[in-house]
Amino acid sequence: MVAAVSHRTDAVVIGAGPVGLYQAFQLGLQEVRCHVIDALPHAGGQCAALYPAKPIYDLPGIVACDGQALTRQLLRQLQPLQVPLHLGQVVTGLQRLSAPGAADGPRFCLHTSGGLVFGCDAVIIAAGAGAFLPRKVPLLDLSPWEGRQVHYGEVTPDVWVGQSVVVMGGTASAAECALQLAEQGAARVTLLHRTDRFDIDAELDERLQSAIGAGWIRLALGQPVAAIAAADGRLEALEIATADDQRRALPLDVLLPRLGLSPQLGPIADWGLALQRKHLVVDTERFATAEPGIFAVGDINTYPGKRKLLVCGFHEATLAAFAVAQWLRPGQRIALEYTTTSARLQRLLGVVPQATDQSSSRMGSGA
Amino acid sequence: MVAAVSHRTDAVVIGAGPVGLYQAFQLGLQEVRCHVIDALPHAGGQCAALYPAKPIYDLPGIVACDGQALTRQLLRQLQPLQVPLHLGQVVTGLQRLSAPGAADGPRFCLHTSGGLVFGCDAVIIAAGAGAFLPRKVPLLDLSPWEGRQVHYGEVTPDVWVGQSVVVMGGTASAAECALQLAEQGAARVTLLHRTDRFDIDAELDERLQSAIGAGWIRLALGQPVAAIAAADGRLEALEIATADDQRRALPLDVLLPRLGLSPQLGPIADWGLALQRKHLVVDTERFATAEPGIFAVGDINTYPGKRKLLVCGFHEATLAAFAVAQWLRPGQRIALEYTTTSARLQRLLGVVPQATDQSSSRMGSGA
Repeated sequence: MVAAVSHRTDAVVIGAGPVGLYQAFQLGLQEVRCHVIDALPHAGGQCAALYPAKPIYDLPGIVACDGQALTRQLLRQLQPLQVPLHLGQVVTGLQRLSAPGAADGPRFCLHTSGGLVFGCDAVIIAAGAGAFLPRKVPLLDLSPWEGRQVHYGEVTPDVWVGQSVVVMGGTASAAECALQLAEQGAARVTLLHRTDRFDIDAELDERLQSAIGAGWIRLALGQPVAAIAAADGRLEALEIATADDQRRALPLDVLLPRLGLSPQLGPIADWGLALQRKHLVVDTERFATAEPGIFAVGDINTYPGKRKLLVCGFHEATLAAFAVAQWLRPGQRIALEYTTTSARLQRLLGVVPQATDQSSSRMGSGA
Repeated sequence: MVAAVSHRTDAVVIGAGPVGLYQAFQLGLQEVRCHVIDALPHAGGQCAALYPAKPIYDLPGIVACDGQALTRQLLRQLQPLQVPLHLGQVVTGLQRLSAPGAADGPRFCLHTSGGLVFGCDAVIIAAGAGAFLPRKVPLLDLSPWEGRQVHYGEVTPDVWVGQSVVVMGGTASAAECALQLAEQGAARVTLLHRTDRFDIDAELDERLQSAIGAGWIRLALGQPVAAIAAADGRLEALEIATADDQRRALPLDVLLPRLGLSPQLGPIADWGLALQRKHLVVDTERFATAEPGIFAVGDINTYPGKRKLLVCGFHEATLAAFAVAQWLRPGQRIALEYTTTSARLQRLLGVVPQATDQSSSRMGSGA
């Protein structure tokens, strides 16, 4: 039963970081059709998110290259293979559809938070440290109020006229959120942070301080230690511990945590795959998990000797692509071809096949 | 007993192809001192020798790059680490010096055809398909006359005044060698090839045909099937089989085979390491051979799932560098550091440490 599959394909790659993008490239060379999903709104993953402008010096043959430039190059390299990227959504569930050996229908059904449903026969998890999602408020379980009074994502602030809105965090995104609400003037805005120092640039800090000075934004210093619920179940206040260890209640109608992004393994942790300290255990021949058809490459996997380096993830993605091709075409020999000489690969990549170079072919036939 | 060691170092990398060069780079990042040896007179190995101008399209983050450009980039990347390359010489022997656990003196002594003697504690074989050496005359054993009447390498033709010199081969190097001798006019020159078609460009072919037309070079068509020795042991003639299956003797004083280069595993095959169809068997954690201290990376090794691709060799070299560092510093934890953030690695590479990027460090701490 495959209800409402929106995309039928051979393989889905979870993660559009450098390793996920190169995985899609290598699958393309194997003529395996695939789609790529990522939680971030842009390709490049951790690398582009955390180090967009800091050079990497140890990629083979690339003397220096920052995360953004690497992402751009990997996307350019992938471009001729026309792999669809689905960004800004996380995988919410995996269904096993067909028993091993069943010939008809896809083996897996993969659901995303964006409402997409992929029918596929192989899944390659290239999720790095996990999906980059908004960091939750530490220590508190606010899940009963998430989506009603507690909002991590984008909000439409005009609905909170006359209400008390608490923005929590010391990041630029916290300061900007509080300023945006204050400038609209509809809600009473409190900015909650453990200190009065913010991790923001001078210009934003000046805007924030003048809004605080003018009374448009109230500043609350301290750490939330408990959620206080009203008799009707509504979130009524946060109990705050101050630096001098006083406790007080901070009443609120709406809480907007803005604590930055943090990587979360998410539902992948619940798929029943073997985990070792939050990493997926794979073999070094196929980079396959213990579940047939599910592979894992890059920082998310582990095996004896594993080092979390891009150069290793690229190798893993390459061997995994051979293994996926073999998994999809059992009994067929998956030959090694070189992009330098293979007319098939050059056609796929849309490059003009080169005439044999006389001066070099004389040197010998190689091995 | 370490007689006449010319270079004492931590490790020797055999092979200056792309994987050998990157191996040296990764060893440098581990602060393992190393030297690199290669049979070819230039760095880049098979890649630069066979495909100097043909693009490679599947290196991660490099959309297209020929063998020469890749070699140039890898050398640039290696440059700050100041690794000596010793080119144009092959490894002729390996001596085991100290027993496992012996603290003093190097473990291995490595000899080259260039007369160098390396004392080292680790050897990393990155020899690809083997050393690129002149192809031997097939079917015949000419070893009794090599260096006296049979010369594979550079020659000083003025010593053969009045003698019969046979140049063998259909390559540009055969044609050029024959023309050079003919133009000197000292020796009687015969060019031996199985057909009258040469694998050379139009301009060289024209020069060759006019030298043959003028009688400066005699053309002999056929394949040598036997070496004919005189009573005194000298090589007197080759027995030639022609296309119409006639046999005739081709008298000669000197034979210059010019059959191109072919990769030869050479003495490495005799080191007692486990071989599987001429490849060195390694594990996938350390890329170590069965002999402690000897590692193998790139096209020369084999393990389950092995594919002869540069991207795989680069990964192998990276993990091997960690393993070599661990081998040289037993009991010490070899930590993973990133060139993006490690001040130690940036100092080694001679790059200015970057200030932390505010806008990105806000995103979260990563994993």
